[in-house]
Amino acid sequence: MEPVKVGLLGLGTVGGGTVSVLTANAAEIARRAGRGIDIAHAAAREYRPETIRGLDRIGRIGDDAFALVEDPEIQIVIELIGGYSPARELVLRAIENGKHVVTANKALIAKHGNEIFAAARAHGVVVGFEAAVAGGIPIIKALREGLAANHIEWIAGIINGTGNFILSEMRDKGRDFSEVLAEAQTLGYAEADPTFDIEGIDAAHKLTILGSLAFGIPLQFERCFIEGISGIETQDVVYAAELGYRIKHLGIARRSDCGIELRVHPTLIPERRLLANVNGVMNAVLVKGDAVGPTLYYGAGAGALPTASAVVADLVDVVRTLTTDPNNRVPHLAFQPDELADTPVLGMEEVETAYYLRLSALDQPGVMARIASILGEQGISIEAIKQKEPAEGETHVHLVMLTHRVLEGRMQEALARIEALDSVQGSVVRIRMETLSG
Amino acid sequence: MEPVKVGLLGLGTVGGGTVSVLTANAAEIARRAGRGIDIAHAAAREYRPETIRGLDRIGRIGDDAFALVEDPEIQIVIELIGGYSPARELVLRAIENGKHVVTANKALIAKHGNEIFAAARAHGVVVGFEAAVAGGIPIIKALREGLAANHIEWIAGIINGTGNFILSEMRDKGRDFSEVLAEAQTLGYAEADPTFDIEGIDAAHKLTILGSLAFGIPLQFERCFIEGISGIETQDVVYAAELGYRIKHLGIARRSDCGIELRVHPTLIPERRLLANVNGVMNAVLVKGDAVGPTLYYGAGAGALPTASAVVADLVDVVRTLTTDPNNRVPHLAFQPDELADTPVLGMEEVETAYYLRLSALDQPGVMARIASILGEQGISIEAIKQKEPAEGETHVHLVMLTHRVLEGRMQEALARIEALDSVQGSVVRIRMETLSG
Repeated sequence: MEPVKVGLLGLGTVGGGTVSVLTANAAEIARRAGRGIDIAHAAAREYRPETIRGLDRIGRIGDDAFALVEDPEIQIVIELIGGYSPARELVLRAIENGKHVVTANKALIAKHGNEIFAAARAHGVVVGFEAAVAGGIPIIKALREGLAANHIEWIAGIINGTGNFILSEMRDKGRDFSEVLAEAQTLGYAEADPTFDIEGIDAAHKLTILGSLAFGIPLQFERCFIEGISGIETQDVVYAAELGYRIKHLGIARRSDCGIELRVHPTLIPERRLLANVNGVMNAVLVKGDAVGPTLYYGAGAGALPTASAVVADLVDVVRTLTTDPNNRVPHLAFQPDELADTPVLGMEEVETAYYLRLSALDQPGVMARIASILGEQGISIEAIKQKEPAEGETHVHLVMLTHRVLEGRMQEALARIEALDSVQGSVVRIRMETLSG
Repeated sequence: MEPVKVGLLGLGTVGGGTVSVLTANAAEIARRAGRGIDIAHAAAREYRPETIRGLDRIGRIGDDAFALVEDPEIQIVIELIGGYSPARELVLRAIENGKHVVTANKALIAKHGNEIFAAARAHGVVVGFEAAVAGGIPIIKALREGLAANHIEWIAGIINGTGNFILSEMRDKGRDFSEVLAEAQTLGYAEADPTFDIEGIDAAHKLTILGSLAFGIPLQFERCFIEGISGIETQDVVYAAELGYRIKHLGIARRSDCGIELRVHPTLIPERRLLANVNGVMNAVLVKGDAVGPTLYYGAGAGALPTASAVVADLVDVVRTLTTDPNNRVPHLAFQPDELADTPVLGMEEVETAYYLRLSALDQPGVMARIASILGEQGISIEAIKQKEPAEGETHVHLVMLTHRVLEGRMQEALARIEALDSVQGSVVRIRMETLSG
């Protein structure tokens, strides 16, 4: 068969990686796909030719992305520009022109995916986005196809490598957040503006996508609860470790009786869980299905070649669908578009988790009893409690508590009352906790 | 669309699980697949109706498997009988009748897969076998589709839950092999005749399949090297732990300069690896691709519902291909059938690994020097050595050594010479070792 002609928008890190992989493994990929894949046209404003293997195999390199999506020769457009605009306009225009699309753009899919998939459906084309979540790990394929038999109960994932690197270093070396962040920036793991990574926005983009695939709901990024890791202090990492837990920045999507939870936040998890032992920049996603039980998917969540691996896997999939019946393809969001559910995404106050609490209190009789009684009045039971001796020159002790599961709304009320006590200093540190079992 | 009509051969553990999953999740599966799946016909000699949810939804239950594969109403046959015969005859007959097949039968695929896939190709049908390897973990889909961009370098997997349970218990509780095996049989984790599990034959069936998918070679079960765990002694588990390693029963498929390694054997791996922390009956497969790097897939490797999860995922895939161009489907062995390679599978003497060695030697001057010089003459360098004091009443010390990588053939020569020494008692215990990095 004739090679497929693809167009490439962007020749940055992932774009360059994609050209490199398609070049290095051209023969092997064709042996799998049954036909070759030619990059007939690429568009990029700026790129570094010396970093890209196989640049000479690209038919034509221009700088006009909008010209590329009009190029009649191109059957599949690979969007690797990133960001919301002009990525959205380019993708929609490619779809209108009857071209299939492969993208690594999590922000675009999380925010504009519903519109993009509707357009794709109207024009009978496919949009592949495996590279948008967890880099090279084929987690979208696993959720959409591999676990298709299951009623998915929950997903918990380490889906931002930068955040995981920072928390891993804080634990291993007892270093402070800001110190490790600076190192991550030097190493190229974190951007000059690290907000998207450390404040959880990047993870929330990915979790939004995973949640829709798991539960068959439209993409609702704006309903996702987001808490980053910039407030995590080294002493809490240490206290958590003493209690047998590690702090990980997790994206959690869970089906409860009342609706669906979509939440990104630092989380204590038992140190024996595999997920607790995923360190450095690696990603992992744990999926609980009713038939299969827990399954875990681990690998590099970012980087030129791992992300390119997912882009090219999508390309091969799209090549295979070129001759299929459009009504019989894998649906974009795992469920048939007219079968998406309107199950509500819950507000955080309606979510139930266990908690790690740390507070500074005067070392006086009766203080602990007051705190315990406030918690008790809100129906919060304490699983473990540790008192830490005051540091030299301090009059307050640290109280560290683990609680059983409780609605976040109730915990907020209890914390407001505890913080109002004269014997309690400052605010209560509160980190959510999950056992990841059941 | 009309529901698809499937026929089910076997109502044992996995067959019952499949009926249960198709019943419990019928609506959700149809929301994904775009149409319902009806079990129109089942054939089983014996089954326990009280254990199967949804038995009443089966159109017709008979006891004649050969009648089922002739049933003109059936579009897809699910083979869950197991074993080589009559499974092979039934599957081939179903294919000749133009029916697609889904099977969980690893023995059948490993041994007769080449014949079965050729027949399927000739008749334009698909044979799904996700459930044949690692139960509910979608590892076949990951290898065949999710990692299609990669040149696969190696695979290392814990792919037999019984063996992993036994080794986990030996390490955690210091118990002997035979004692744990008896418990595994009581718990139902091991068969009354545990040979297939503990001698590595089951793992070799699965590894044969994984190796073909990774490297694009025909199935060659007879070329797979197989060593079980029945010879593992508790003291070696303990010594390995002292050196920072765990002993796991791994299936390893690796591409070397000379050919392809397919080998199942007990293996020391560093305790910090995720794979070393996969315990009990759980399975996990680590895959190293050149673009994606290492990725790991973890989950239940056996059991009614996890295996049914994979069977039903295959069913949904097959339902989707009912309207596709047969020449444009995912190839059975990942690579197009006319693109399979004749790369040789290496004999074990041509395989290079590091080694753990344990021997009993007289506690005399010069003994260690003799042993070291024999190893040195074979080009084997020692990475670590530990001497264990003799137990009370024994005149021999235990010497435990870790070596660097060396060809197995050379190690065998060295061991023959060491075992011939008067100062060495009995045979040398030898367990292969892998770092699973690089």
